[in-house]
Amino acid sequence: MTRYQNQTRVLVAVDCIVFGFDGQKLKILLVKRGLEPKKDHWSLMGGFVQPSENTDEAAARVLKLTTGLDGVYLEQLHTFSATDRDPIERTVSVAYFALIDIHQYEKQISEEYHAEWFQLNEIPELIFDHSSMVTMAREKLRYKAALHPILFELLPVKFTLPLLQSLFEDVYETTFDKGNFSRKIISTGLLVKQKDKDKLNSKKGAFYYKLDKKHYRKNFHAVLKFVPNLNTHLETEM
Amino acid sequence: MTRYQNQTRVLVAVDCIVFGFDGQKLKILLVKRGLEPKKDHWSLMGGFVQPSENTDEAAARVLKLTTGLDGVYLEQLHTFSATDRDPIERTVSVAYFALIDIHQYEKQISEEYHAEWFQLNEIPELIFDHSSMVTMAREKLRYKAALHPILFELLPVKFTLPLLQSLFEDVYETTFDKGNFSRKIISTGLLVKQKDKDKLNSKKGAFYYKLDKKHYRKNFHAVLKFVPNLNTHLETEM
Repeated sequence: MTRYQNQTRVLVAVDCIVFGFDGQKLKILLVKRGLEPKKDHWSLMGGFVQPSENTDEAAARVLKLTTGLDGVYLEQLHTFSATDRDPIERTVSVAYFALIDIHQYEKQISEEYHAEWFQLNEIPELIFDHSSMVTMAREKLRYKAALHPILFELLPVKFTLPLLQSLFEDVYETTFDKGNFSRKIISTGLLVKQKDKDKLNSKKGAFYYKLDKKHYRKNFHAVLKFVPNLNTHLETEM
Repeated sequence: MTRYQNQTRVLVAVDCIVFGFDGQKLKILLVKRGLEPKKDHWSLMGGFVQPSENTDEAAARVLKLTTGLDGVYLEQLHTFSATDRDPIERTVSVAYFALIDIHQYEKQISEEYHAEWFQLNEIPELIFDHSSMVTMAREKLRYKAALHPILFELLPVKFTLPLLQSLFEDVYETTFDKGNFSRKIISTGLLVKQKDKDKLNSKKGAFYYKLDKKHYRKNFHAVLKFVPNLNTHLETEM
C-alpha cells in the first residue's frame, strides 16, 4: 500500500502573528504579499509547509526569513480550515503567534520583505481570514498573559516599571494607578531590581529590573493578582 | 492561475479524544482501526477531512459516526504534523477533544465500530502519535477545568455533590475533604439545589443539583478556588 485511496490532498500553510512592543504600543508585523492572488495586499507572514518540515519548523523558518530572529517565543494558536479560505485552491493554515523583543528585530530584513509594524487599532485590511487570526491571537495573548508572565518576552532583558506598566496597560486597554501597579508587581517576586537606572525618560530616573528566571516557574501565575477584569479575558475560553 | 506551483499537497485528518465519566472513573473512547496500516490496533476515532468540510465539521462527523452524539462539547486541541507520523503517506492531523455525558452514548453504535471505553491508567498501546494526543488532551482538560466549569459537560443534567466530587478527584488524581468540597462548590454560586434526592447510592440520600446556566458565565472562574495545586496544572502553559 503506497497511498491512501480516494482521498483529496490539500496544501498546508503556516501564518504567523508576530507581536512586538515599541515602548509605548503593542504592534504586529505585517508584510505585503509577494504572490498572486492578492499580491501587494497586507498579510500575515506565512508560507507553505515543506515536505521536510513539521508546522513548528515551518513557522520558525518563516519567522527567521522575515525578522532575522531565531529562538523566539512561538506557539501554535489554531488551525484555520474553511474550505474557501484561499480562492486559488484549498489550503489549511496553522496559525502561530510569536512574541519578540522589537529591538532585536533587524530592520534591513524587514525592508527586503516590505514588512511593517502596525498598532492594533490601525491594522489595514488583511487577505483571506488573516483578520480572524489576529483577533484570536490577541484574545489568546490576553488570556495567557493573565495567567503566565509571557509579556516579558516582549521586553528587553532590563526594563523599568513604567515600561512594564505601559505594556500591561496597552495589552489590556486600561490604566493602572502607578503606586498600586508597582507594589503588586514587586510583590509577585518575579522581578529583581538592578543597580542602574534609566535616566532618559525622566529626570529622577527609574530603576531597571530583570525577570527572576529562578522564580519564573514557581510564581508564574502571580500575575493573576493584578490583571483587571480577569473574567473578561478568561471568558473567551481559549 | 488555477493552483499554486511547485508545492506538495498532503492529507489532512482529524482525531478525537473523547472523555466520558461513568460515575467513578474518567475514561476515553478508543476504536479498533478499520484500515491498513495498523488495522485492528487501538486508535483514537479519526478520519480524513473531506473536500466539503472544515476540520470542525469533520470532527463532528467522526464523533457522530462513532458515538451517535450531536452537539457535544468539542474543541480543537492541537495540530500534529511530524513528517513521518503516518507511515503510509504524510498526513497532518488536527486533534480535537470532546466531553460527553457517557449515559447519552449509544452502545449499539459503539459495537458496530468496535469502540470501547478505557480508564486513563489502562490505555492500551495506540497507533502513530495518538498517545501524545491523549497526553496533551488530558493536560488541557486539567488546565481548562481549573479555570472554567467544563467538567459539568461530563455529568448528567442532575447530579449529586458526591458524584461531582468523585469527578474532580479523578481528574486531578487527588482526594478532597467532603465537607470542604461541598462548602466551596456551593459557595461558587454555580449550582442550584433540586428538591429530589438520589437514594440509590446511600441510605440517607444525596440531593440533586443542577448547573445554574444564568450564573455559569459570571462565575465560571470560581472553580479556581478549590482546585488543588493550581500551579501544577497551569504550568503546562497551554
